Amino acid sequence: MRAEYINPFVSAVANTFATVVACELQRGAPRLQLPGEELFDVSGVIGLSGSAVGSVVLSVSKEVALQATSVMLMTEMTEVNADVIDAVGELTNMVAGSAKAKLAELQLSISLPTVVTGKGHVLSFPREVTPICIPFESTWGPLKVEVCLAQSLVPA
Amino acid sequence: MRAEYINPFVSAVANTFATVVACELQRGAPRLQLPGEELFDVSGVIGLSGSAVGSVVLSVSKEVALQATSVMLMTEMTEVNADVIDAVGELTNMVAGSAKAKLAELQLSISLPTVVTGKGHVLSFPREVTPICIPFESTWGPLKVEVCLAQSLVPA
Repeated sequence: MRAEYINPFVSAVANTFATVVACELQRGAPRLQLPGEELFDVSGVIGLSGSAVGSVVLSVSKEVALQATSVMLMTEMTEVNADVIDAVGELTNMVAGSAKAKLAELQLSISLPTVVTGKGHVLSFPREVTPICIPFESTWGPLKVEVCLAQSLVPA
Repeated sequence: MRAEYINPFVSAVANTFATVVACELQRGAPRLQLPGEELFDVSGVIGLSGSAVGSVVLSVSKEVALQATSVMLMTEMTEVNADVIDAVGELTNMVAGSAKAKLAELQLSISLPTVVTGKGHVLSFPREVTPICIPFESTWGPLKVEVCLAQSLVPA
């Protein structure tokens, strides 16, 4: 995966959290996704296709999911219910949409978000691509983004 | 979700299993995905975008994943390892590719597959769409396909 494809996702996550849920993030160093690496409690997944194909995953700890949803809905959330799942899907959608706009040359289309829940779930990508993981810290707890994006074999 | 969008996925699953892993499937009745419905042990997810946007999920029990991979790789598989995860991703890719070809009028692009593992994982779709679940039985055990596809708000 080309390095210049990473930064749009990093800034998309930081901007989305700052503007939508008023949460400043500390970014860790981008690294390769580890084999079998577990995600946090709630993970939004969006497929990307165009001149490149891939996926972006926004995975947040339970506390981040609850706090972010509480801000978005202006109601205190105490359990991961349908509202929280929807909110994480919507945040994932905003991250993908923002990164897509910055990667205009790839003419990306984004799919609908799907949201994975379940303790210790793992998300694997095809072996021929190299997913990059970018960890973040917030006052609410940890989150991370996994991105893989490979040249498309078919024209957009 | 329009009914005529379902059949291409049903026949794509049946054809893929029959031709790629020589496994005949018995199809159950398509129904709405239940809220919080658990998937089987290994689930491939592919995003769809074009004149409609959505996702397709192929979820298989551990035994189906092992047996299908054993046929594809001509080696007996006994645990859900990277080969098995890759094989389920590849089957999901074939299902999405076959359905895409039959839904030419939607000009769908498909993303790379991501594969979710982890006991009792749940995959949720945005609340405004209605995901359809199609259960199948095989001699190896159960599998199911979940599809959601909604009109796109932006042109393809």
